[in-house]
Amino acid sequence: MTTRIVEVRQNVLRKNDLLARELRRRFDAAGTFVVSLVSSPGSGKTTLLEGTLCALARTARVAALVGDLATTRDADRLARSGAPVRQITTGTVCHLDASMVESALADWDVGGLDFLFVENVGNLVCPSSYDLGEHLRVVLLSVTEGEDKPLKYPTIFNTADMAVITKTDLARAAAFDETEALRNINEVRPGLPVVQVSARTGEGFEAWVRELWVARGRALTSPLC
Amino acid sequence: MTTRIVEVRQNVLRKNDLLARELRRRFDAAGTFVVSLVSSPGSGKTTLLEGTLCALARTARVAALVGDLATTRDADRLARSGAPVRQITTGTVCHLDASMVESALADWDVGGLDFLFVENVGNLVCPSSYDLGEHLRVVLLSVTEGEDKPLKYPTIFNTADMAVITKTDLARAAAFDETEALRNINEVRPGLPVVQVSARTGEGFEAWVRELWVARGRALTSPLC
Repeated sequence: MTTRIVEVRQNVLRKNDLLARELRRRFDAAGTFVVSLVSSPGSGKTTLLEGTLCALARTARVAALVGDLATTRDADRLARSGAPVRQITTGTVCHLDASMVESALADWDVGGLDFLFVENVGNLVCPSSYDLGEHLRVVLLSVTEGEDKPLKYPTIFNTADMAVITKTDLARAAAFDETEALRNINEVRPGLPVVQVSARTGEGFEAWVRELWVARGRALTSPLC
Repeated sequence: MTTRIVEVRQNVLRKNDLLARELRRRFDAAGTFVVSLVSSPGSGKTTLLEGTLCALARTARVAALVGDLATTRDADRLARSGAPVRQITTGTVCHLDASMVESALADWDVGGLDFLFVENVGNLVCPSSYDLGEHLRVVLLSVTEGEDKPLKYPTIFNTADMAVITKTDLARAAAFDETEALRNINEVRPGLPVVQVSARTGEGFEAWVRELWVARGRALTSPLC
């Protein structure tokens, strides 16, 4: 039984990887930089995204896909930014996959977008295996979750391209040990860029948005020139 | 392909359910009350468990199994309480299942225990489908995660027998809306008992321990008389 599951799983992952590669090719051609956000439930993905859409919308064309098991709350929240937002409701599935992203984009012309954000289901385990065709995978860690999370959920940190430490305004109240958190991230994924933000106070937000532009520039031959 | 996965998955769940039922029979016969803890990563399962083991150890025989993808940090922390603790390391698996619990207990005589705690992998999605043979499934929600989590992860709240709101000492700093959180829990699972605790200040801890004894009494014909 176990062998059979592993085989089925490997086929699923292979199929997903092929589709993700095809999606990435499409995004590249369109000049759309795709950023996915992964974290535990409640680490602040939607709140970070709310601020990010507002900040970027001044100078760029942005949109977002948001995954959840149930409700369209996140899409409703994000739509207030004025950016086009679509909800992917997964039912009982613990992660997004490339085919969900493809379906959500089926009748959507991403060609006009500079940034497309994909917010995954809140889960530090399952999303790590599924390439969504994104250029940049960002893992969030809030200061209230504990500094040991990178060590306990190494795979998701290993597959990420950037880490964002969120809710820094609560750092003191939560007795957050920044040095230990950074050491643990670096132990699991040496050299992973880390940005620290408080979406509530705005601290670190400029640096985060700057990093997005830098990463975009690195990934794409600018489609604007 | 999708159909085949669903079939394999249903077989796995059926097999798990049968084993879980057998485990529960064993626990019943031994008078061991089994409590599982589920939540997001970083909601405070280990911290709650640390305090609980200490509080109960004065008057009861307690032990714990702790699940994690990697590291034995949680087991190391909990072992300081003096209670027997075993770590289940799942690798890349996003939840515990009944066979992992059975293996961990293989050479362990649970007959002498009043309480056995099983701390699941931090995940609000996957653990919901797997019966571990526990009598009481407790879902944790920390005040920093957002009041909407019950609505967005309904299955795990639906399969729980009790909810614990944790980190209440951070409620003000996190602008936690207690009324909304309770309303959302009640919307997803009407009548679910809710306890609120701060493991840091000790607030609510007595009520939580009392609830454990009450639930134990309700589930087991006392093996002590």
